[in-house]
Amino acid sequence: MRASSPPRTRIARHTEAAVYVRDYDLVQDLIGKLSFTEMIVLQLTGRMPTALQTRILDAVLVTLMEHGFTPSSIVARLIYDSTPEAMQSAVAAGLLGVGGTFIGTMEGAACLIDDILQAGEGAEARARKIATEHAQRRNPVPGFGHPFHKPDDPRSPKLLALARESGAPGRHIEALELLSREVDAAFGRHLTINVTGAVAALLGEIDIPQKIMRGLAVVSRAAGLVGHIHEEQELPTARHVWGLVQREVPYEENPR
Amino acid sequence: MRASSPPRTRIARHTEAAVYVRDYDLVQDLIGKLSFTEMIVLQLTGRMPTALQTRILDAVLVTLMEHGFTPSSIVARLIYDSTPEAMQSAVAAGLLGVGGTFIGTMEGAACLIDDILQAGEGAEARARKIATEHAQRRNPVPGFGHPFHKPDDPRSPKLLALARESGAPGRHIEALELLSREVDAAFGRHLTINVTGAVAALLGEIDIPQKIMRGLAVVSRAAGLVGHIHEEQELPTARHVWGLVQREVPYEENPR
Amino acid sequence: MRASSPPRTRIARHTEAAVYVRDYDLVQDLIGKLSFTEMIVLQLTGRMPTALQTRILDAVLVTLMEHGFTPSSIVARLIYDSTPEAMQSAVAAGLLGVGGTFIGTMEGAACLIDDILQAGEGAEARARKIATEHAQRRNPVPGFGHPFHKPDDPRSPKLLALARESGAPGRHIEALELLSREVDAAFGRHLTINVTGAVAALLGEIDIPQKIMRGLAVVSRAAGLVGHIHEEQELPTARHVWGLVQREVPYEENPR
Amino acid sequence: MRASSPPRTRIARHTEAAVYVRDYDLVQDLIGKLSFTEMIVLQLTGRMPTALQTRILDAVLVTLMEHGFTPSSIVARLIYDSTPEAMQSAVAAGLLGVGGTFIGTMEGAACLIDDILQAGEGAEARARKIATEHAQRRNPVPGFGHPFHKPDDPRSPKLLALARESGAPGRHIEALELLSREVDAAFGRHLTINVTGAVAALLGEIDIPQKIMRGLAVVSRAAGLVGHIHEEQELPTARHVWGLVQREVPYEENPR
Repeated sequence: MRASSPPRTRIARHTEAAVYVRDYDLVQDLIGKLSFTEMIVLQLTGRMPTALQTRILDAVLVTLMEHGFTPSSIVARLIYDSTPEAMQSAVAAGLLGVGGTFIGTMEGAACLIDDILQAGEGAEARARKIATEHAQRRNPVPGFGHPFHKPDDPRSPKLLALARESGAPGRHIEALELLSREVDAAFGRHLTINVTGAVAALLGEIDIPQKIMRGLAVVSRAAGLVGHIHEEQELPTARHVWGLVQREVPYEENPR
Repeated sequence: MRASSPPRTRIARHTEAAVYVRDYDLVQDLIGKLSFTEMIVLQLTGRMPTALQTRILDAVLVTLMEHGFTPSSIVARLIYDSTPEAMQSAVAAGLLGVGGTFIGTMEGAACLIDDILQAGEGAEARARKIATEHAQRRNPVPGFGHPFHKPDDPRSPKLLALARESGAPGRHIEALELLSREVDAAFGRHLTINVTGAVAALLGEIDIPQKIMRGLAVVSRAAGLVGHIHEEQELPTARHVWGLVQREVPYEENPR
Repeated sequence: MRASSPPRTRIARHTEAAVYVRDYDLVQDLIGKLSFTEMIVLQLTGRMPTALQTRILDAVLVTLMEHGFTPSSIVARLIYDSTPEAMQSAVAAGLLGVGGTFIGTMEGAACLIDDILQAGEGAEARARKIATEHAQRRNPVPGFGHPFHKPDDPRSPKLLALARESGAPGRHIEALELLSREVDAAFGRHLTINVTGAVAALLGEIDIPQKIMRGLAVVSRAAGLVGHIHEEQELPTARHVWGLVQREVPYEENPR
Repeated sequence: MRASSPPRTRIARHTEAAVYVRDYDLVQDLIGKLSFTEMIVLQLTGRMPTALQTRILDAVLVTLMEHGFTPSSIVARLIYDSTPEAMQSAVAAGLLGVGGTFIGTMEGAACLIDDILQAGEGAEARARKIATEHAQRRNPVPGFGHPFHKPDDPRSPKLLALARESGAPGRHIEALELLSREVDAAFGRHLTINVTGAVAALLGEIDIPQKIMRGLAVVSRAAGLVGHIHEEQELPTARHVWGLVQREVPYEENPR
């Protein structure tokens, strides 16, 4: 039973004169000393970030922030127009789209990487089996392929190179690259490592557990959505989008 | 009519081989070169951040991230327990609490500061009038007072000092401090500049418009909530909270 | 201080063998005996509904459910496509659009009606003052005018007639019609009582307080959104909408 | 590819003088003629409801509306307190909890029922296999068992009897009862058919597809949450809950 241990928290406490986060004095030890990214690592892990963690997490958060007009950003703009008095609703609505369809592939890729790593000396065989099974069932491999960026997603080689140059241990990256070779062989053509695959490997390199990875994508996208909301304040598009949909999705009678 | 200009966006576009954000090539110019905080400034303003913007925004985002068990973090944990397959829902639900009650004071403080700044040479008179009117109506002054931190919210002097040491122009800070003196005089006792007041002044110093300030609080809190969700994965509290509320809020019969 | 009274609830309690809602035994007294609409009245007011309350609330909930492709329904469909494993997220995201822009007018109309009713014998003068002030400031009058339905919103006369025929006391309706005459006079042309104005009057007739009216619109729209989500399961539009927006909102360079 | 057919909608359209829902004239044919529940059926299925559909759906919506202080209602109250200017946010936040943990069992039960029905003459063997496999793996059977209501969830026999008395065809109910006998045998003790199991069978009886069932629970709960929000307006509990959690979840130092 999950709730059997007595409830407790290690995140924050305060006194009349101080706020403590993860045992650190917010005013004395954190404000002005940590970047936002460093604070995210501390908040999430309970430990001060290493230089590698900060460098990789910055790269990941920068990469995931923005993709132009996506379902999330369209949603945020429409909701902002409907309720400008509650901007947080627009961000929240947009974030609700950071779900299985788009971010599930990052988590799926992280699972495959963990799976290969746990196979130890059998890693290559494990990677081959994963690739072969997906190819036979014609299933997409999480973290591979891209509908638009061809032959390669430009973000992935950049992220992998950055992690290596920054001194990442490299085990998760190697597992991903091993899987990549087997995927190309099993499918008989080159499938790019896409950005979600690369991000899964990078977050693995800095010890972010698979089960919380989605949360970091959510934080990065939140910042992206705030940018869209601010643009909506200056260059509104929501009413135009609404009219567009009304015009372009015709009505047809119900079958009786 | 807001939608009269043709709709357009300046945020992002992509080609087969590249993604551009605010005209910059994401892979060549941004990943590995900008911190998350710097990318937030670029995304929001369309311009590369100054060192001052980055330093102040980092301080603000670090400050606002975490306050322990607040309505937002309690909500995020309860929703995560109800739908662990959709972690983004837990973040979104928690963010819906970053509304008028808690963050409205930051926006209110920013309005007062803008109001004083626009008064030009009449700034002191304007500040006195604001303070007096609030005191006479016994209205709380946005950005002043704290239910718990006394005599002073420890975060505020830290933030103001950091901004000054970092070379902020100081106009918004001075307006806030001018208002502070008038508030103390009008109320006949010391009311602390609280964290929302200090943040309003700091964001003003780096040219963040009042109307988008709430969005930055939302981003910071999103990161805080992800920390709470991760702790809920390891040290669950949601079922305990549920039981606690059921026990502690008794039923009483309906008046007929 | 709002929380000064000891916390308690009058909504529901349960034992091993029974569930009670508003003191009634759910199994013995409510299931199979009350319609959903009747149960909504009981849940909201703590009292069994009158025939008038049920008839009017049914009419209101039927009226507000559906308006085709609105920001809310577009949002619900986009989010459903992004996270089909969490359908409730799609409903929730769509409901976040039931905010000030669209439903605020219903609340505004209810406020005006309450205002006129409280004027007692001065009702006519009060209505004239409201109409004149709005006309002079060229402010829209909440509950009046419609961008598309002309000369009259067809739903409003139907709702008002239905309430009268059902034996509504008529005070709120009369106040609305009084205001309508003064609005036409003050603006020098006919402005239709729109659906939000009519609904505000009808809910007032059955003693629904202004401050919870929005909640009933939210319930009705929730049902509408579930219909859109089910259509999205059968006749998907979300990917088409996404593509449409990407094509139709061009990118332009940032001013430097 | 899901979006291959041209996008279209059969839900609603409007002209200057009329609104049509599912081809029906809203003003002429629906307002004042349909109850909210009947309109929900029309909106969802595109067909006028049968008497059986209305009777069963009313019973289901009445049953699911209210369970006292649940995660959803606690969340709605906390968010309402944080943002009373955006009541829809409180409903939306609460609905985000209508996810896998609580409503997944209804969908799981509907899947098992569909599975048994598709087995045709092999239904008994299929039910036995399902029960045995769950018992062997010590997995809970969706739709069976209740942590609090013992020996039987009082709502389930009521709902099943009501459906039978109302003339439901009975196939889904029989499949559920067949499964119930096999579950008791396989587990060696009586496990109650719980409310989610009974609701799954009832919705199956009126041709509501499994994949949209969750949506109806969401609508019912939306109405329940509006009741909680209105009670929060009159008898506030949110601040008390917040204080309770802060007191009862102690801080402990982080392991280093």
